[in-house]
Amino acid sequence: MSSMEHILHWGEGQSFSYDPQRTLYQNLMDRGVWTGDAPCGGKGTCGKCKVIVEGGNLPPLTERELRSLTPHERERGYRLACLLRTEGEVTLSLRRGEEGALIQQDHFSLEGGDPPLKALILTIPPASLEDQRDTLTALREEAARGGFDHLDFPFSLIAPLPCRTGEEALRLTLLILNGRVVAVKPAPAQGEPPLYGGVVDLGTTTVVLYLVDLNRGEVVDTVAAMNGQRARGGDVISRIEYAEQGEDNRREMGNIIGSQLARMADEIAIRQGFRADLFLICGNPSMIHLLAGLNPSGIARAPFAPLISETLFLKGGDLFLPGYEETPLILPACLSGYIGSDILAGVLFTGMESREEHTLLLDLGTNGELVLGNREGLLACSCAAGPAFEGANISAGMAGVAGAVSHVEWEGEEYSYKTIASEPAVGLCGTGIIDVMALLLEKGIVDETGRFLEEEELADLPEDLRARLVTDGNGDRAFLVAPHITFTQRDVREVQMARAAIAGAVTTLLRERGISLEDVSRVYLAGGFGFWLREVSAIRIGLIPGACAGRVEVVGNSSGKGGILMALDRHKLARAEELRREISYLELSCHRDYQNDYIMAMTFPEGGEIPLG
Amino acid sequence: MSSMEHILHWGEGQSFSYDPQRTLYQNLMDRGVWTGDAPCGGKGTCGKCKVIVEGGNLPPLTERELRSLTPHERERGYRLACLLRTEGEVTLSLRRGEEGALIQQDHFSLEGGDPPLKALILTIPPASLEDQRDTLTALREEAARGGFDHLDFPFSLIAPLPCRTGEEALRLTLLILNGRVVAVKPAPAQGEPPLYGGVVDLGTTTVVLYLVDLNRGEVVDTVAAMNGQRARGGDVISRIEYAEQGEDNRREMGNIIGSQLARMADEIAIRQGFRADLFLICGNPSMIHLLAGLNPSGIARAPFAPLISETLFLKGGDLFLPGYEETPLILPACLSGYIGSDILAGVLFTGMESREEHTLLLDLGTNGELVLGNREGLLACSCAAGPAFEGANISAGMAGVAGAVSHVEWEGEEYSYKTIASEPAVGLCGTGIIDVMALLLEKGIVDETGRFLEEEELADLPEDLRARLVTDGNGDRAFLVAPHITFTQRDVREVQMARAAIAGAVTTLLRERGISLEDVSRVYLAGGFGFWLREVSAIRIGLIPGACAGRVEVVGNSSGKGGILMALDRHKLARAEELRREISYLELSCHRDYQNDYIMAMTFPEGGEIPLG
Repeated sequence: MSSMEHILHWGEGQSFSYDPQRTLYQNLMDRGVWTGDAPCGGKGTCGKCKVIVEGGNLPPLTERELRSLTPHERERGYRLACLLRTEGEVTLSLRRGEEGALIQQDHFSLEGGDPPLKALILTIPPASLEDQRDTLTALREEAARGGFDHLDFPFSLIAPLPCRTGEEALRLTLLILNGRVVAVKPAPAQGEPPLYGGVVDLGTTTVVLYLVDLNRGEVVDTVAAMNGQRARGGDVISRIEYAEQGEDNRREMGNIIGSQLARMADEIAIRQGFRADLFLICGNPSMIHLLAGLNPSGIARAPFAPLISETLFLKGGDLFLPGYEETPLILPACLSGYIGSDILAGVLFTGMESREEHTLLLDLGTNGELVLGNREGLLACSCAAGPAFEGANISAGMAGVAGAVSHVEWEGEEYSYKTIASEPAVGLCGTGIIDVMALLLEKGIVDETGRFLEEEELADLPEDLRARLVTDGNGDRAFLVAPHITFTQRDVREVQMARAAIAGAVTTLLRERGISLEDVSRVYLAGGFGFWLREVSAIRIGLIPGACAGRVEVVGNSSGKGGILMALDRHKLARAEELRREISYLELSCHRDYQNDYIMAMTFPEGGEIPLG
Repeated sequence: MSSMEHILHWGEGQSFSYDPQRTLYQNLMDRGVWTGDAPCGGKGTCGKCKVIVEGGNLPPLTERELRSLTPHERERGYRLACLLRTEGEVTLSLRRGEEGALIQQDHFSLEGGDPPLKALILTIPPASLEDQRDTLTALREEAARGGFDHLDFPFSLIAPLPCRTGEEALRLTLLILNGRVVAVKPAPAQGEPPLYGGVVDLGTTTVVLYLVDLNRGEVVDTVAAMNGQRARGGDVISRIEYAEQGEDNRREMGNIIGSQLARMADEIAIRQGFRADLFLICGNPSMIHLLAGLNPSGIARAPFAPLISETLFLKGGDLFLPGYEETPLILPACLSGYIGSDILAGVLFTGMESREEHTLLLDLGTNGELVLGNREGLLACSCAAGPAFEGANISAGMAGVAGAVSHVEWEGEEYSYKTIASEPAVGLCGTGIIDVMALLLEKGIVDETGRFLEEEELADLPEDLRARLVTDGNGDRAFLVAPHITFTQRDVREVQMARAAIAGAVTTLLRERGISLEDVSRVYLAGGFGFWLREVSAIRIGLIPGACAGRVEVVGNSSGKGGILMALDRHKLARAEELRREISYLELSCHRDYQNDYIMAMTFPEGGEIPLG
């Protein structure tokens, strides 16, 4: 028994020798394989360390596991890594992707046609005593004939070039990005070489990677995961505070997300047989700084000046993308400390910057960002909405993954709810939170001030709803959304503040721009919850002004889609860099009017106007 | 005794624990500190491993050492590392510099005034809510105000930038080279920052590094050494053959010379207190390829196409310069497989490319390179002269260092010779070889066909010379230059072929250019032996045509001086890149006329025309 080898296999052909005295979770943490969080600290209650385990000497499911795992999960072989000790050779599938529900479409196409990454096939004739040109000069002259003059050719790509000989011609493909050679490959036997871009929407909470066929404008695969940096803080500010403690911490933060991106890209590469020839990564300025190992301290405090905002053309080796050291990497332009390339991507995707009529982009992620205007000018601002709409800070909140309550309904005097993937309810995601809040307001269970009414004040409430009024562990009023899942007085306050931050910002922006809601022809609503959001609920809780009813367009992940557009069209990429100088940024943090607008928006809209579906 | 620590100190504060059972030479080899050659293989006969040793438990001088070391060397503490075993703590001074004789001037100035490396001092105001520009944008806008727009700013220099805060202004110095930021430093308290360039003449045999004050155009220090790559072959072709065997060998070759350059720069830095802010390295194309770790195989065989010729702007980390990873590095343009930046530097230094009259540049290093023409056009060629004039392939040949016979004279019927540093003669350097050859021809000891006459044919020879006619170990005729130092029939043949290669090339070049020797207003003679060369001897052996008598200008190390010019004036650097396209290259290796001219030049000029000083 003592000679038994304890080998843990994970990922694509990776393995290590583990310690059977420690739980699988501890072993994974020790090796740095596990980068996700485990809020319960390994007590088996949060269920975030679910893994599929095969092989090895596995103990039977514990009580805790039986409680935490759905029948579907048990069937698929899920276990809780934090409770599991095993022996011998085991194979793990990490649930790191948490795919499925996060992704709305695996396949879609966008128009491009002029990608910033170009492939140029060259044939360099053999040398002779009449043509003794050195390899690089001969290559440059062929490239100039192909329309690429004065290429910036990094030495790391010059050194491995084959030497010209007198015998045969050299046939090479240059990959060119922004006037710079980023790769030299053998030329394909025939036709154009395939070109793939890995476009990343790097969110504070979630990360999505789209593999895009740059020749055809088609998204061929998608993978999503929770941002591994959450282990160093769920919110932006605690991650910045960690990173500003020193160079080592910054390197660690860059390493966490860089290696996660590399693993995600590997996952697609194995599935599809194509590696990304290019990465284009959009995110908020903090995530971009933390990815690049840059000091984000300027963002955290007034006057909120970041280190960089311009478009960066890098390569994987500049950051921390293992296995992609030579792969070119574009970080498109950001606007300010809080308006990142994710928002500029959204502006490009909606096309609001070229429209005659005024439109409003509302991006609800961990923060709330807004852009208002038309082709004559855009005004942007950021408000500290907090991550309530992503499920954070909400007692039963969770990301939009399997088992999250995504909708509640009141139809035919009957209450019902829906979960993602129809799995047993384990929490509430953003759309569910907004639906519940809307229902509570609509039925008068919560009043405009955000107060849960006492039972005696709710004499007229239908019995089906009354039965759901409970008291939480703190003695506060709460609403039972689903078995064991409550939405409490505290949760109402979180939503109330978040939505006041946004509604207040809309008011301030309109005033600064000198227009009214009636002038806004369209409200683009972007964010993780995207397509599942019900306009009617968003309007009921005052997240979107009632005056905009019928003019709301849910655009989903506009950061990712705008990123794909930039990867497909170099003019869009260049336009983002222009927008960084054209869009005015309104700093709300010390804006007098905004403080007033925020307080005014603290009151929920009066009910009754909007029928709840 | 067994607990005694055996520590060897060398270089600047470097040390390692050595094995007292092995000789110092073996210990140095084991550690890779010793990169020079030791032709005798550690037998104590070649004397190339001389070191100054201090401290430790040193045995007395051996017989061998007494024979190999000059009294001057013994006085200074020199020992032969290959014979020496010691114990305890010792300090070594390696003779790696072999300074002194190689260097003609430590201090000289050249005119420049517009160096390619610029220092730009910036003051970036503190951030405020009215000025939230990111650090990089604010810095770029200040730089643009200083005349530097659209700077290429590498990510490795962006990442460590300090963040703007609301408190104080940032004061920074940017070092800018060719539109690219190459360093960011704190701004000096007052005045302009000092800027130093390390200009390298990278020869096949010798390496010279000049530290140049770029603000004042002054050479402040110089260090010279034998090229450490000699351990992998004395001549270019055997080094190329070694390098083309694979990536590892190329890396090794780059590593040898790169770490040698770094050590030389360190030596000056410690002496002067200034580190080089820039390196500019001129050399023949093979040395440049081998420095850069590039595959030189194209140079070794027809059609002689190298991998690169253009000006390269690199940094130390692209090559193998330990401690100078971030230091910018310029490799100026080369012309062909055999005409390197050393020759283009010579063209710039002599100014021949801008003169109305025709001039001829003759650079005699390990190979022979020639450039002929005027401002309307230049024609260059390379001939396989071999390294005879550098002392290689000559039985008693050696580099121009202390103890080398540099001149022989016949005055007042008396023979005499001079050695470098007036030390006892240990061999013959290039100028000595030419002087001896000239004397032998002048006195009829050797005839025009290169044959040593038999004693009976030399009845009229003065007794002082006759006494010097000896027979070497092979039974061949020889001339006793100094005690134990002979110049043999074989040596005559070496010189005969070398000078024929050059004289033949001059004839071919003139014919191609359609001019005669009379049209050549000046012959610039460059090469290691530089200033010591006697025009009269060079003409006597036919190295320079007699018709050019009085028009020869010895320019010394024109490669180093032209390199200094390029480091001081970006227009000269740009001009080298233009010259690479403007100068025509004449390939002699298969040129019919040249073969004829070479054979014709095999006969030495008839004597009697030129009196020998």
